[in-house]
Amino acid sequence: MTNRRANYINMVDHLTDIPLTNIEKETNLTRESPYRQNFHIESESGSLGDPNGFSYFNKNYHLFYQWSPLEFSQNPHYTHHGWKHLCSPDLIHWQDLGAGMESDTRYDKYGTYSGSAFPVDDKLFIMYTGNTWVNTESDDDWQRIPYQIGAWMEANNKIKKVCTPFITGTLKGYTGHFRDPKVFKKHDKYYAVLGIQRNNQTGSAVLAESDDLHNWQILGEIKTNHNKFGYMWECPDYYELDDKGILAFCPQGLESEDNKFCNIYQSGYLIGKPLNMSDRNFVCGKFHELDKGFDFYAMQTTKDKKGRRILMAWMGLPEIVYPTVKYHYTGCMIFPRELKLENNVIVQQPVAEIKDLYSKKYQITASLNNKRIEIKAGKQNSRDIELAIVGHNDATILDLFANKNNSRHLRLIFNRKKQKFIVDRSCSGLEIASSYGTSRSCYLDQSKLIKVRILQDVSSAEIFLNNGKEVFSMRIFPDDMQNFIYLTSENGEAKIKATINQLKVSKVGMSLKDN
Amino acid sequence: MTNRRANYINMVDHLTDIPLTNIEKETNLTRESPYRQNFHIESESGSLGDPNGFSYFNKNYHLFYQWSPLEFSQNPHYTHHGWKHLCSPDLIHWQDLGAGMESDTRYDKYGTYSGSAFPVDDKLFIMYTGNTWVNTESDDDWQRIPYQIGAWMEANNKIKKVCTPFITGTLKGYTGHFRDPKVFKKHDKYYAVLGIQRNNQTGSAVLAESDDLHNWQILGEIKTNHNKFGYMWECPDYYELDDKGILAFCPQGLESEDNKFCNIYQSGYLIGKPLNMSDRNFVCGKFHELDKGFDFYAMQTTKDKKGRRILMAWMGLPEIVYPTVKYHYTGCMIFPRELKLENNVIVQQPVAEIKDLYSKKYQITASLNNKRIEIKAGKQNSRDIELAIVGHNDATILDLFANKNNSRHLRLIFNRKKQKFIVDRSCSGLEIASSYGTSRSCYLDQSKLIKVRILQDVSSAEIFLNNGKEVFSMRIFPDDMQNFIYLTSENGEAKIKATINQLKVSKVGMSLKDN
Repeated sequence: MTNRRANYINMVDHLTDIPLTNIEKETNLTRESPYRQNFHIESESGSLGDPNGFSYFNKNYHLFYQWSPLEFSQNPHYTHHGWKHLCSPDLIHWQDLGAGMESDTRYDKYGTYSGSAFPVDDKLFIMYTGNTWVNTESDDDWQRIPYQIGAWMEANNKIKKVCTPFITGTLKGYTGHFRDPKVFKKHDKYYAVLGIQRNNQTGSAVLAESDDLHNWQILGEIKTNHNKFGYMWECPDYYELDDKGILAFCPQGLESEDNKFCNIYQSGYLIGKPLNMSDRNFVCGKFHELDKGFDFYAMQTTKDKKGRRILMAWMGLPEIVYPTVKYHYTGCMIFPRELKLENNVIVQQPVAEIKDLYSKKYQITASLNNKRIEIKAGKQNSRDIELAIVGHNDATILDLFANKNNSRHLRLIFNRKKQKFIVDRSCSGLEIASSYGTSRSCYLDQSKLIKVRILQDVSSAEIFLNNGKEVFSMRIFPDDMQNFIYLTSENGEAKIKATINQLKVSKVGMSLKDN
Repeated sequence: MTNRRANYINMVDHLTDIPLTNIEKETNLTRESPYRQNFHIESESGSLGDPNGFSYFNKNYHLFYQWSPLEFSQNPHYTHHGWKHLCSPDLIHWQDLGAGMESDTRYDKYGTYSGSAFPVDDKLFIMYTGNTWVNTESDDDWQRIPYQIGAWMEANNKIKKVCTPFITGTLKGYTGHFRDPKVFKKHDKYYAVLGIQRNNQTGSAVLAESDDLHNWQILGEIKTNHNKFGYMWECPDYYELDDKGILAFCPQGLESEDNKFCNIYQSGYLIGKPLNMSDRNFVCGKFHELDKGFDFYAMQTTKDKKGRRILMAWMGLPEIVYPTVKYHYTGCMIFPRELKLENNVIVQQPVAEIKDLYSKKYQITASLNNKRIEIKAGKQNSRDIELAIVGHNDATILDLFANKNNSRHLRLIFNRKKQKFIVDRSCSGLEIASSYGTSRSCYLDQSKLIKVRILQDVSSAEIFLNNGKEVFSMRIFPDDMQNFIYLTSENGEAKIKATINQLKVSKVGMSLKDN
């Protein structure tokens, strides 16, 4: 635990306490990165983590995220933690509103941990977890005390914290791992679902209730059929789609099961009848992974004015070291997705607003028999690719981020013979988390038409199979010559129809006028 | 089907009909390959396939294999197919006895397909499938007529075919895919188990019976709980270990299931009570893959004078193109393994005779915390590596076939956090069958000591986990600078004990005196 103390030596409450030159040193280095995204939210320096307070309020989408802008600063190393604040009228163009919340009170001194936001009349209510430590004089026996606390944001985007915690410490029978309140409203009452760890080292979610968003009462655990499912549940979310209830959360500590649960931590959901608020029974089936890719965590949803359920998530994972650390930043968000229900599972699609980023359009129809073709669709790795494949072959292979001779690529394999989809990033560029494997896969029926959609950015790909029934999100760190696309049919014929839209740059932090 | 006819234009019955210079052209090219193995059986030119007639007879192990020595010959392209014959006193040093059987009769003109051998007094009985085609004048309607035929080998290794087929054509209700008789003896009767395809395009195994090895009677299908399990079963084998019956076979046409059945075709077994010979009921459980690696097929066993059940198999797969084709050869055998039963599953280990190949021994004890070390164990990729790992980390990584900077390697990942073993050959050298994925994996309990054994040859690795409970076999085609070994512990400490024996060269085809 000595390292922990070292982390806090130059801890500052406010970003304004840090000399501007030190901050600029970080942002200048980050700007040099060849991996900066074109249309995904990322941090202008330091680390980006969980999305927080995702909401539609005052004619704008608001998004906060876990932010440590000085995470990689050196000589001296500063520690500063808070919530970055962004807002957007359209989920595409985001304005950077700076440090929305900072770790500046006795209840959140050691971390303005994750939380959510909920619009109430002309204000936005924010509820989050403040992290604190006691017994910090000891070398190895720091004790975690969590506080569930709140804040209110006005229409002018000014945020004021509530002075007293709603819930102090943890609950009886549980450890100090108690966090990430997600607020929702049902039957004119407010509720929050929170992640918690039982003393027996299993994870769960508890429900809290409030009439006034000030006095909160713990109701107890949400009762599911997943009582021994990881040692901690982070970032729970509860919402309803059609007539179903969805309890989403991020279980930590699951062992791999075949080709499931391959990442360091998981993200997924239970689906069932709407949660019974009186007895907290949630009658549900098995746990579904929301995203089967390499990099996806801490998802959070909100409902917008159009009634859509929109998903945001961190395209990254805790503890995984990404190669952008060299440029003193790490992490990005997924592109926002709309969630719908189809045959009792969630299907995901990029929000329709993406069309406003379309620039040049390429349409390709091809029939290839046992051969490889190049697909020409501009030089920028910023594309919305839609592909329809009818195979009479053993396998169809789509290589993205390919170099000219195709020795490097992100490889998407549609193996018809094995009815399997594989995404293989082993030869895609810099190594990332290879001890968790370099490919991900799922069953894919290829007896009929396969539909694939891929959002490709400078250093990421989000793959949507069959209208978003299966999604794979991932970071890739290619060389700058890796902008070719190849398509191969092995042992037989594949008929292909592709529509590829180049996407305009919509970098975060730009003033909206610039775009 | 026009291609099929093209294949037979220069078909010759006997190798001796081909000019010696044309054969030498092939073997000379093969000798230039940098991928030639040091202690695994491979073909001196052309293709090596299924092991056949594996037996212990006249103080020697006899092994045949499917052999097309002119498979890659050009200008002119010759077609010749038969069984290569090898024999060995010790399963290590093999003498090349040339073309044991050739496709030279009207019953095996289009292929001396797979079969088995069984010692009877002072002779070796051979039973195999002869492939023939009728209606070959048509372009696209060739009909396959299989014959189950035999031969007898004398103590002087001379083989004489039996003039009349034992079984002509296929059975009623079945297609022409009827082959690969494996002979065994039970209760003083001879039996053969054969692979067959039902008219409804599902695979099965049938049992034939004989008192005299000449008059054979079809008894019917072996009745298992696997009635819809692939479209064809190749290379069946039946044997007993302890008090259990094993029905091994190679099902074709299985879809992938999670991380199972990833290769183009599968190899595995059902285990149950000994086969009831009168009603052919085989009461058994689920299908186990015998080898979870990339390259393993058409296994065949025999019992030797010590009572051991020895396994041979092709370290390769049908239809997969290996990069050695450039040197006009392909395929090799696994190193022979002894099979035992443990908790109702087969466990596999290299035969103990391998110790006779040991030359220099390296012993390494190391404790590494969050770091990478090089393990020095000679420059030749010919090693028997035994490793014991106790991890208090997230993952331990063993890189074999590594280049100096470790950008290329065969990577073995022991991910403790996910209780998963992964072998990743994506960055190991030349690309092989990447549309079937570049990694294979299984569950591996890492709460206790992990034992790993690896037989490493110039272009292959056979990985035995926990005393051979899980085995992964694979080909690798590295650069010649890829002879480093690295060991890494991620996020914590790993204690390692390694014993590495360099292995002597024991190439097939050398006269025994040379060794």
